[in-house]
Amino acid sequence: MEELFSEVLQVNVRCRDCEERKANIRVTIDLQLTTSPVHKKDLLVRLTDDIDSYFLFNLTISEEDFQSLKAQQGLLIDFASFPQKFIDLLNLCYSEQKAEHPRFLLQLSCQSPLLEGPINFSVVETNAFKHLNHLSLRLAQGSDKEVKDYLALCLSSLKVEKQALEMRLKKTEDDLSRQLSYAQQ
Amino acid sequence: MEELFSEVLQVNVRCRDCEERKANIRVTIDLQLTTSPVHKKDLLVRLTDDIDSYFLFNLTISEEDFQSLKAQQGLLIDFASFPQKFIDLLNLCYSEQKAEHPRFLLQLSCQSPLLEGPINFSVVETNAFKHLNHLSLRLAQGSDKEVKDYLALCLSSLKVEKQALEMRLKKTEDDLSRQLSYAQQ
Repeated sequence: MEELFSEVLQVNVRCRDCEERKANIRVTIDLQLTTSPVHKKDLLVRLTDDIDSYFLFNLTISEEDFQSLKAQQGLLIDFASFPQKFIDLLNLCYSEQKAEHPRFLLQLSCQSPLLEGPINFSVVETNAFKHLNHLSLRLAQGSDKEVKDYLALCLSSLKVEKQALEMRLKKTEDDLSRQLSYAQQ
Repeated sequence: MEELFSEVLQVNVRCRDCEERKANIRVTIDLQLTTSPVHKKDLLVRLTDDIDSYFLFNLTISEEDFQSLKAQQGLLIDFASFPQKFIDLLNLCYSEQKAEHPRFLLQLSCQSPLLEGPINFSVVETNAFKHLNHLSLRLAQGSDKEVKDYLALCLSSLKVEKQALEMRLKKTEDDLSRQLSYAQQ
């Protein structure tokens, strides 16, 4: 599993019968290589929320899935160049997210009043004339098992960070008190 | 929800067709008060493993459950005194867990070769004559949803601890470098 992208981005959220609101969502793109039984590459797109542990939406795009996505949305690139092109679009949105009228923005829309069930995640360009949909992906809500696995991963990396911090605190205390006793002599 | 007990205890684990082994398991006892629709108290017993995020076994004991447990295992106490008596037994096991031949020990047994499905969690006294079973509880393995909820709780408390540590590191650095510059003057 190779992580290609992981950033917190501003997303416009539209649920049914609700006011549009802005949210900070972490967008992660991983490349998963499988060698058995056949060599294949899958692209994993994951939306999470650093504050809400239960927020998880997933999409796995295989090479075959990409062919139908390509036909359906009129994409002109192949599967190999798709991840970088997608990341370029996300970076474009990122660079404009502080602007009052961003030209590129991310949109997350959902048929239900709450953010649940499948959602559409889109990169939208707004010009003087219309909204242009550059890419629209349909993500499924993480199952209990998927959220469980994701949280177990978060927990183990947070434990590592906490341990590193404890060691740094110990070292800082030792270093500085040594310097202090030396200076006071 | 009131936490009555939460300690890592040594437990003898017996699975089918496996050698008995020792494991460090966190035993947590919570008292859950519900006021609606009726006032009731439930005792929640939870076994977790601080290292293995997926390890979760649960038992909820209501006052009615306790009556059948009492009849079945010949207990002489009532529901109100049960939590403290159970904690006393756990503390007895804790105080003897370093001994070569502990008189009281905790046992976890399971019908399957792996630690899965329902398990029996027992407090066993061993004297010169026999093993005496003081208490035996049957715990269910946590579902994906229960493990998910448990991990979300762990994650949020770990985040709080990490934040506190970051603040302490910052404060230590500030304090000591102030003292250092003062001592060097």
